[in-house]
This record gives sequence, structure tokens and C-alpha cells, in this order.
Amino acid sequence: MANRLAKSFNCPTEFTLQVLGGKWKTVILCYLSLGPLRYAELRNFMPNLSDKVLSQRLRELTEAGLIERRKGEGGDKSEVYALAERAQSLRRVLAELYGWGETNAAEFGVSVGHPLRSTQGLRKR
Amino acid sequence: MANRLAKSFNCPTEFTLQVLGGKWKTVILCYLSLGPLRYAELRNFMPNLSDKVLSQRLRELTEAGLIERRKGEGGDKSEVYALAERAQSLRRVLAELYGWGETNAAEFGVSVGHPLRSTQGLRKR
Repeated sequence: MANRLAKSFNCPTEFTLQVLGGKWKTVILCYLSLGPLRYAELRNFMPNLSDKVLSQRLRELTEAGLIERRKGEGGDKSEVYALAERAQSLRRVLAELYGWGETNAAEFGVSVGHPLRSTQGLRKR
Repeated sequence: MANRLAKSFNCPTEFTLQVLGGKWKTVILCYLSLGPLRYAELRNFMPNLSDKVLSQRLRELTEAGLIERRKGEGGDKSEVYALAERAQSLRRVLAELYGWGETNAAEFGVSVGHPLRSTQGLRKR
């Protein structure tokens, strides 16, 4: 991603948003910020997204050095996606984005799922 | 905006990003999170944005109830844009987005401006 990023930004926020890379990539990073996930698990979390788009976003995030594929540590050793070293610093931003949505949905008259709660059991990988 | 927002989201992050409304709106909110600004001041902060797009984004944010126009308290009483009540809760998210960009730009090989620093003198309005 470093190569594709503009070299200068007027505002730090503009740069952060460019790194996060749009709605779906940010949502994927958010899911992975809690722990590694298999493709099928990510798939379940994003039922509105086509396989094509999900695969593409995962590839872009991998190329950007923000996520990586690695062997899972579960019984079946299936491959998982995980936040790469470079994305560790994004954890707080991601937590704020998630937390604000969770706290303020009712006031805006919308309902939101709580996908991260259901991943508690998946953390140990 | 409440009317235009989807009524349910799978992930709170998706909802937050929808409210923030894309790059330029988020950047505008970020500037206004430090204090009210006149149109011309916002204009200076976003030289890459056309007047047409800036005006449109400001209109959308106003319609969404996230910002409002009010009489400034400076000597010339010129009109300013300010965060509306509804957007006050976004301050922490906005600060995180700005702060991450400021802290991590060098590691990603990009340079960022520090526009908020130069607005320190503008806060009292």
C-alpha cells in the first residue's frame, strides 16, 4: 500500500482514512482486531458482501501489509487471516469506530448486530 | 441523515462509517471538532477540494444534523460552521482518526500537515 498511497496529505485524518481503505476493508480489520479468523468465518460476518468482493478486499489488505495469512492453531490447522504487525497500531481507532456505533445506534434509530461478541470463543489461535 | 441511513447494520463499525459519510465529510467534522470555522477557513484547510464539493458536503452534513451554521462570536460576527449536538459524541472517534494519522505517517513514508495546530487561535467562538 505504501506505494499506492499519496505521499502527502493536508490532514492526518485523510491519511488514516486512506490506510483504512473504505468501508469493507475497515470492517474486515475491525473483525480481525479481535483475533484471527478463517475465510468462512469472515464470510458469515459479512453476508451482504459477495465472495468476489470479500476475496478482493482481503487481497488488497494483504498487499497493503495490514493483514496476513497464517496457519491456524486450532485442531484443524486451517488457514486464518490475522492483523499484521503494521496494523497493530490501528487497534484503538478500530475499537473507537466499533464502540461509537454500538453506543449510538439507538439514538440514530438504527439497529446494529454485535458480531464481535460472538467471536469471543475464537480468540485463541 | 437518519432518514437516509439504512435501518440495520451487521457491524457497528459499518454504521459509524456511514454516519461519518466518507473521506471529506470526516475531514470536515475533524476540523470542526476543534472549534467553529468560517467557510473561508475551511476552504483554506482543503485546497484540493472544489468549492462545489465543499459546499455540497457542508450541506449534507447540515441536513444530517451533524453540523450547524451559527453566528460567530468574533469581532465581525461572520457566520461559522460548528459541530451540532448530535456530533459531539463523535469527538473521540475523530480525535483517534487524526491522532493515528499524525503518529504513523512517518512509518508509512508519507508526510501530513498539522492543520489543527494552526487553528488553536480560532477556538474561542
